[in-house]
Amino acid sequence: MKQGLLIVVSGPSGTGKGTVCGKLLAETPQLAYSISATTRQPREGEVDGQNYYFLTREQFESEIAAGGFLEYADVYGNYYGTPLKKLEERLQAGQDILLEIDTQGALNVMKKCPEGIFIFLLPPSMAELERRIKGRGSETSESLERRLGAAREEISVGKQYTYVVVNTTVKTAVKRIQAIIDAEHSKAERNEDLFEI
Amino acid sequence: MKQGLLIVVSGPSGTGKGTVCGKLLAETPQLAYSISATTRQPREGEVDGQNYYFLTREQFESEIAAGGFLEYADVYGNYYGTPLKKLEERLQAGQDILLEIDTQGALNVMKKCPEGIFIFLLPPSMAELERRIKGRGSETSESLERRLGAAREEISVGKQYTYVVVNTTVKTAVKRIQAIIDAEHSKAERNEDLFEI
Repeated sequence: MKQGLLIVVSGPSGTGKGTVCGKLLAETPQLAYSISATTRQPREGEVDGQNYYFLTREQFESEIAAGGFLEYADVYGNYYGTPLKKLEERLQAGQDILLEIDTQGALNVMKKCPEGIFIFLLPPSMAELERRIKGRGSETSESLERRLGAAREEISVGKQYTYVVVNTTVKTAVKRIQAIIDAEHSKAERNEDLFEI
Repeated sequence: MKQGLLIVVSGPSGTGKGTVCGKLLAETPQLAYSISATTRQPREGEVDGQNYYFLTREQFESEIAAGGFLEYADVYGNYYGTPLKKLEERLQAGQDILLEIDTQGALNVMKKCPEGIFIFLLPPSMAELERRIKGRGSETSESLERRLGAAREEISVGKQYTYVVVNTTVKTAVKRIQAIIDAEHSKAERNEDLFEI
């Protein structure tokens, strides 16, 4: 069985990564969302191991101590996190996994899963901002400088990613991410079986 | 202007790379064939710098001496080769260039243009052969062993490529190569301008 790919889609706030990831998942049959662990109570119809892995606080905290999470957060008194071992089991079973995460979280994932495919989604407004700043040349105002500084900081982290996709339209962004997934599956290093005859 | 990509498509004989490359070129507007230099006479309608770069034997041999060819060959008394400088000029102008070449030639191109995108095309019959060999298990005949040895030698070079695509159908192979080109254009290292705002 060929190992699945960990597809990490991240980007600054306002990128529209939720919309892009939702559409990507709907249109890519071999791709599934990462399943989070949580300490909150299951809601009606939620299935353990499908919607979430439901853990007690004791179980969750013991996993934190053991370094068992890719990343985790305490949200209004409930823990949420991505269990590393469960993720690796699904990848080893050949499942491609989509992890939608903020830029800070993605940097942690890079350290723990450097074999992941890291895609930085840029918002169209950021590209728009870039065009406007470039177009104006030297006549930058103080407020424009501030805005530029904030934007610079927010996107500077993107250079550490493998891929960058501009979310001009959801359709083109989804298509580009699908191309990246297909290309990564075609890497010779992932297809050594084809050479072993 | 963003640098174009050198797309090198290669593979063992009988892979059908000519058909795949022709279709790929027809369906990918931003892609153009590499233009060869030759010492043969122009035929009617052939334009210098478009169909071929037409050189005298003296010019060609002086370029060989200067290391000016990615690769070249003497075919029935006429030289044919890929001029490195002309290729680089077109890449620098943002043109994606397709170079269809045999496996021996591709290894030379890897040395001279390591920044190229190297795609190894496997023939469907090779994949078929692999399946048959695997399916038979231990009951290999002497002739099957010979065939296996020859196949092994022919495709072993493919491990040195970045990508491998099985030419199951021309349509799927073309689509996969287009995905590889799109993905390579999305590499963060090729889009530093997006981060420089």
